[in-house]
Amino acid sequence: MGPTIKLSSGYEMPQVGFGLWKVDNAICADTVYTAIKAGYRLFDGACDYGNEKECGEGVARAIKEGLVTREELFITSKLWPVFQDGDQVEPACRRSLADWGLEYFDLYLIHFPGALKYVDPAVRYPPGWHFDGEDQIVRSSTPTHVTWAAMEALVGKGLARSIGVSNFQAQLLYDVLRYAKVPPAALQIEHHPYLVQRELLALARAEGVAVTAYSSFGPASFLEFGFKHAEALVPLVEDPLISAVAAKYGKQPAQILLRWATQRGLAVIPKTTRLELMLQNLDSTGFDLDQADLDSITAKDAGIRFNQPSNYFSTDKMWIFG
Amino acid sequence: MGPTIKLSSGYEMPQVGFGLWKVDNAICADTVYTAIKAGYRLFDGACDYGNEKECGEGVARAIKEGLVTREELFITSKLWPVFQDGDQVEPACRRSLADWGLEYFDLYLIHFPGALKYVDPAVRYPPGWHFDGEDQIVRSSTPTHVTWAAMEALVGKGLARSIGVSNFQAQLLYDVLRYAKVPPAALQIEHHPYLVQRELLALARAEGVAVTAYSSFGPASFLEFGFKHAEALVPLVEDPLISAVAAKYGKQPAQILLRWATQRGLAVIPKTTRLELMLQNLDSTGFDLDQADLDSITAKDAGIRFNQPSNYFSTDKMWIFG
Repeated sequence: MGPTIKLSSGYEMPQVGFGLWKVDNAICADTVYTAIKAGYRLFDGACDYGNEKECGEGVARAIKEGLVTREELFITSKLWPVFQDGDQVEPACRRSLADWGLEYFDLYLIHFPGALKYVDPAVRYPPGWHFDGEDQIVRSSTPTHVTWAAMEALVGKGLARSIGVSNFQAQLLYDVLRYAKVPPAALQIEHHPYLVQRELLALARAEGVAVTAYSSFGPASFLEFGFKHAEALVPLVEDPLISAVAAKYGKQPAQILLRWATQRGLAVIPKTTRLELMLQNLDSTGFDLDQADLDSITAKDAGIRFNQPSNYFSTDKMWIFG
Repeated sequence: MGPTIKLSSGYEMPQVGFGLWKVDNAICADTVYTAIKAGYRLFDGACDYGNEKECGEGVARAIKEGLVTREELFITSKLWPVFQDGDQVEPACRRSLADWGLEYFDLYLIHFPGALKYVDPAVRYPPGWHFDGEDQIVRSSTPTHVTWAAMEALVGKGLARSIGVSNFQAQLLYDVLRYAKVPPAALQIEHHPYLVQRELLALARAEGVAVTAYSSFGPASFLEFGFKHAEALVPLVEDPLISAVAAKYGKQPAQILLRWATQRGLAVIPKTTRLELMLQNLDSTGFDLDQADLDSITAKDAGIRFNQPSNYFSTDKMWIFG
């Protein structure tokens, strides 16, 4: 077991985990099983990733073979916006739990702020972004405090040990912290040297909210979507500064990117389907970068955000990330 | 009367107004009086500006002399964070009204998100940022939806005709719009060619929230604070692109900056104490920039925000702007 982060809920979260976004269904069970074998204990999933059943199969096989117990794992899932109406939160959580074959999640997150109109899972699941023609997403009038109360009820029922949010800006997170009876234990955000999120991290630190970084390798996660601004950038693993730091410490550039994040106090959830890279990513906390090297990487900040709905859809109506 | 913006409350807001931030008390009454004489009808004030009594004196003199009637004016004030606890909103509004000598505000805004601990006006007024040693601001646990309900009550009592918010990010504004019984009619934000706020404007447009730009001239508003990143930039009125556009249309650079904003649909509230500049700023809607010129100015966007508490205070604890 590597280093962990103590959550405000009292539970420990592994600092290096495995991200399940874009893991193909065909190889997902094997990938999860292999990752457990490689030593991963945290798996970061979501309804939206469309692979929760296969993830659960991989977990079940590893448990059955005695590689790991349920208690040793830390499983995260996320609530999709169309299930944010108060009475839809618990059914959505229970559906994800059933897909995983689990009785509880270690962490359950609101995937994005901004409730969307309910979509019956019998009609479309995972529901994705809900459009109703003309690029117009269909909104729900449910405010965040109503969704959050329903999230808190999951903790009361033992369906989630910790709850949190993803893709929230500072002001909305701050507001949740004011009214929460169960404060968000974790915040998951895009974070890499092109988007260092200084103020949001300062807020999270001040308020005792653990932060998990996604897309730690920056534009690399988004090339498959054909994002022009991702293609235009030097890949971070080929960046001269990152490469120089990697050479200095005798590590791989990917390990430098992960260590920079974990030394900033964040958890990371890199994804790979190759065992040698799984091991390499997991083995990224056994060395320390000097403060000057950390600072030089942080100085690459350019406020460049890739995971923004307006990047996926050619519409100004997908503004919610703001 | 120049162009106006129709608010969701049904009232009309002048598109070019006069900003009262940093107008010295010694000349404030005269400045307001002169601005009314010059043709200004919208005055944008705030408790925090510390000059509401003097503003009211200028208004009273102009009304007394028959230059204008109260109904012809559009007066804005703003609620300071230490008065955001539910039961402090109305007393704070009434105090500002008393200072102005008015019976109602045309628009009353939450000045910043994030309630701070109450400060008795008998102790310190205006209260400013409330520190309690060690650069630690003292927070209140009041969430935004509680403050907003108290803001709505002001409309019910006739103390404010329209209500809105200032310095809100997209996600928090969106959330308010979900639970508001009286939706925010206006949003006031920093906006200039270095900070074009594309996504926030798209949200406001989609939701029918009028937007007022402050600091339309960019870094110029912040040089007096010694901000290094404001000093390092070419002043926008000397920027080669802005100057070239100004020459093309036979206007002053300041007029180009204001017209770019008003053609984007925003209201503007420039400040000056010189009559010729008052007239020049007010006379900035009688010409139209070509779309290509608008676009070239918008393309200067660099995501540079000056009015960020972390710029005024050497502390990472002032993160709320995010």
